[in-house]
Amino acid sequence: MDKNKKTFTLAALADRLGLTIEGDPDTCVSGIATLASASADQLSFYHNSKFHSDLKATRAGAVIVAPDAVADCPVDKLVTDNPYLAYARASQLFAAGESYDPGVHPSAVVHATAVLGRNAIIAANTVVEANAYIGDDCVIGANSVIGSGCSIGQLSSLHANVVLYPNVHIGRRAIIHAGAVIGCDGFGFARDGAKSVKIEQLGGVRIGDDVEVGACTTIDRGALEDTVIEDGVKLDNQVQIAHNVRVGENTIVCGCSAIAGSSTVGKNCIIAGAVGIINHVNIADGVTVTAMSLVNKSITTKGVYSSGTGLSESALWKKNIVHFRKLDELASRLKALEKELEHLKGGKK
Amino acid sequence: MDKNKKTFTLAALADRLGLTIEGDPDTCVSGIATLASASADQLSFYHNSKFHSDLKATRAGAVIVAPDAVADCPVDKLVTDNPYLAYARASQLFAAGESYDPGVHPSAVVHATAVLGRNAIIAANTVVEANAYIGDDCVIGANSVIGSGCSIGQLSSLHANVVLYPNVHIGRRAIIHAGAVIGCDGFGFARDGAKSVKIEQLGGVRIGDDVEVGACTTIDRGALEDTVIEDGVKLDNQVQIAHNVRVGENTIVCGCSAIAGSSTVGKNCIIAGAVGIINHVNIADGVTVTAMSLVNKSITTKGVYSSGTGLSESALWKKNIVHFRKLDELASRLKALEKELEHLKGGKK
Amino acid sequence: MDKNKKTFTLAALADRLGLTIEGDPDTCVSGIATLASASADQLSFYHNSKFHSDLKATRAGAVIVAPDAVADCPVDKLVTDNPYLAYARASQLFAAGESYDPGVHPSAVVHATAVLGRNAIIAANTVVEANAYIGDDCVIGANSVIGSGCSIGQLSSLHANVVLYPNVHIGRRAIIHAGAVIGCDGFGFARDGAKSVKIEQLGGVRIGDDVEVGACTTIDRGALEDTVIEDGVKLDNQVQIAHNVRVGENTIVCGCSAIAGSSTVGKNCIIAGAVGIINHVNIADGVTVTAMSLVNKSITTKGVYSSGTGLSESALWKKNIVHFRKLDELASRLKALEKELEHLKGGKK
Repeated sequence: MDKNKKTFTLAALADRLGLTIEGDPDTCVSGIATLASASADQLSFYHNSKFHSDLKATRAGAVIVAPDAVADCPVDKLVTDNPYLAYARASQLFAAGESYDPGVHPSAVVHATAVLGRNAIIAANTVVEANAYIGDDCVIGANSVIGSGCSIGQLSSLHANVVLYPNVHIGRRAIIHAGAVIGCDGFGFARDGAKSVKIEQLGGVRIGDDVEVGACTTIDRGALEDTVIEDGVKLDNQVQIAHNVRVGENTIVCGCSAIAGSSTVGKNCIIAGAVGIINHVNIADGVTVTAMSLVNKSITTKGVYSSGTGLSESALWKKNIVHFRKLDELASRLKALEKELEHLKGGKK
Repeated sequence: MDKNKKTFTLAALADRLGLTIEGDPDTCVSGIATLASASADQLSFYHNSKFHSDLKATRAGAVIVAPDAVADCPVDKLVTDNPYLAYARASQLFAAGESYDPGVHPSAVVHATAVLGRNAIIAANTVVEANAYIGDDCVIGANSVIGSGCSIGQLSSLHANVVLYPNVHIGRRAIIHAGAVIGCDGFGFARDGAKSVKIEQLGGVRIGDDVEVGACTTIDRGALEDTVIEDGVKLDNQVQIAHNVRVGENTIVCGCSAIAGSSTVGKNCIIAGAVGIINHVNIADGVTVTAMSLVNKSITTKGVYSSGTGLSESALWKKNIVHFRKLDELASRLKALEKELEHLKGGKK
Repeated sequence: MDKNKKTFTLAALADRLGLTIEGDPDTCVSGIATLASASADQLSFYHNSKFHSDLKATRAGAVIVAPDAVADCPVDKLVTDNPYLAYARASQLFAAGESYDPGVHPSAVVHATAVLGRNAIIAANTVVEANAYIGDDCVIGANSVIGSGCSIGQLSSLHANVVLYPNVHIGRRAIIHAGAVIGCDGFGFARDGAKSVKIEQLGGVRIGDDVEVGACTTIDRGALEDTVIEDGVKLDNQVQIAHNVRVGENTIVCGCSAIAGSSTVGKNCIIAGAVGIINHVNIADGVTVTAMSLVNKSITTKGVYSSGTGLSESALWKKNIVHFRKLDELASRLKALEKELEHLKGGKK
């Protein structure tokens, strides 16, 4: 696992991550591991009381801890109020740098009118079409295709086999994972009798800064106006964003969720995995939708929302769904009983 | 947004789309926009009464309207009984043409036995295997792979990074979006104790004319016979079509839906997003299935079908699913009450 | 359909598949078809009583049957206790061999430090990064990208446009379908106020022997430790495996299912299509989860599990979901009625 082989002293980590050392500043760590598995040359972190016994028994070289856990940590400590955030930042120090050779690979096909920023890396077999703009310090992974008129902001990375259709605009520091397709046609047809007549999708896609797009995620271009992914949004793998959707700042959309046409999701939302959001609905800021829920109407108030039945053994489930199909009848029968009972009681008085 | 920059007079649009002009035939428009956002050099359309106030206030250069809306439109009009269909056709006029250079890109790898039709465009880094047939006026996007023995009818377009396995047959005027994979193996195994023995998928895939296949959609080849997508079918992004499925003419399947092995979907159906259809079921013509429903049995009658619970706040939802799990018991208790009450009433007589 | 054109005598098939001939050992078959459609030069098989009338009327050249069906088969027979398993093995004989040219295609970009085994086939436009290891008799499909430090065991096949990120390790005899992405970043962030700080994913992916991975399936690398797919696992198309998931030996995961972070699935499980499994749950060995179920808690006991409501006509469904949202209230009303009735009966005594 070469990816995990940089070495830092605690002094260097404390300096770069803004942490306080309790222990030997010269202790060296060359990777990150869990409290249970870390060895003496690795860093760990403690952020959740369910790992308390692991903390007390850890053999890590050092642990990132909050002040109230210092006493229970048997090894060197890096102290911070938010150990999980410090772990995230530390992970970035330990991550491997890009392995691509600098510059434009000779097998890449770059149109004469495309503009490449300083230090941009264009990997093998990549295709960059006319008038595309690749910002400074960008990396375009192998076998990717950048459509005509696209722009990519500085310090962005596209992994292998990414496709940008024409006129897709991506901000700075974006990470686009392999197999993602951005700017494909929205799914729009007018009916001519039984036949579907294609509505050409004349809009584009605009993606803000600091956005991450997962592997095999698809983002459609707009019908007339653009589909918009705002700054700081994180989309997991196999997410589907339909035409003219707008996803608000810093919202997180987990794997396999789908947002249908013209719907909007507010800022700072958490859309869990495999959620479906129908078309033309609006979701307020700060909403959480739990896994595999169907959002079939707008959500106007911040809060946590769910659908589904929960899991059962199939034998019981089969019995229960029979009654789900009769729930309206069942409710009517209950109401009738209540009336009769009321009547009966009245008659008794 | 260069994609939206062709210019037409109203006279030209009326002529090409079969519309009637009310206003100045020399008015020029060079793009399409919504009633609310269109400027004087843009065309708009009015098809839904919810935009009635936008119509009355529009600053568009011209609007496509039905006869009964002419009076409320303050600018030049193109009149038709079906404005939405006319908009669809107009969108095709305003769409950008293909940006690919003509012919076979020097970086493409085309087998000596492959046959390319007149004006076929084979983009950079494309691979075309033995005995493949690419029809006249087809476009094969960059980094796509066309397997041996495939055929693609005239005027079809494959976008970038499409993969056709061997022996996939696609009709005329198809549009296959980036990242789609057609002809991959159906998921078939025989059990040998705990182990799964692969059943080789010896069938192919046949796709009709005028079919559109979305980005990252997957269509499996058949086990023995072919998987079939009939004429005019439109599949959105991330749809999964398993082996030996047949999808009937002009049916629309929205994003992220999945159809399991050997099931058939009739003609003119609408399968909304994220629907699951289990294996070996048949769906009649003209059926609509709403978003995220599970079709766990055949549907023999035209109509609209749904499953799921609808969305609730999670706190309430958690209480409700407890009772869903006891629905059979709850129904039994209700029945017992009804009996007792009947008995009680009888006793009172 | 060239893929289906090898010819075998029944004697040869009996020998290679361990079957008993009843009939003429010199009968030749050159393909496999269903009982209903097979012609005299094709092999068929009978494994399910619902095809009994097809068996009696078949015109196949020969049929694979169990001993108890011999009497009802009008043509030559290959007899075995498990005809379906014999069909699977026969399908492998009739499948076409690889169509790729041997060796490294001149358009492939293979890093000087990569190691290629004997007879490895590296197709057109493939990219193999530094220190990758490709085992003997492997096939790497066109336009695939093999990241640095990856290893692939002997006799494995990757189809076109597969992406392996760095440090992905795949066992022997694996089949990875087109568009699959393995080793992409797990979806991990720490919150810094409203912003998400990326947690670099420092683990890798380890895939065992005899694993099949479907088209456009995504498997994330681990956060600290590896994501693990054990021997004999079969993943269908568009499956999503999140970071640090472990899928146990011989488990089958059907199309479009998703397993969220750090969850484990036992051995010999069957996860049907479009199932969602939330994060940090554990599923016991031998569990079956039916289509489109949400696993929102651990499953500790072998068995069959489900969720969802089953399908209804939408008009009825809309009435029923109103009551689902009030199920807790409805249950309370039922309980109140039971009490009142009890009281009433008590009062009558």
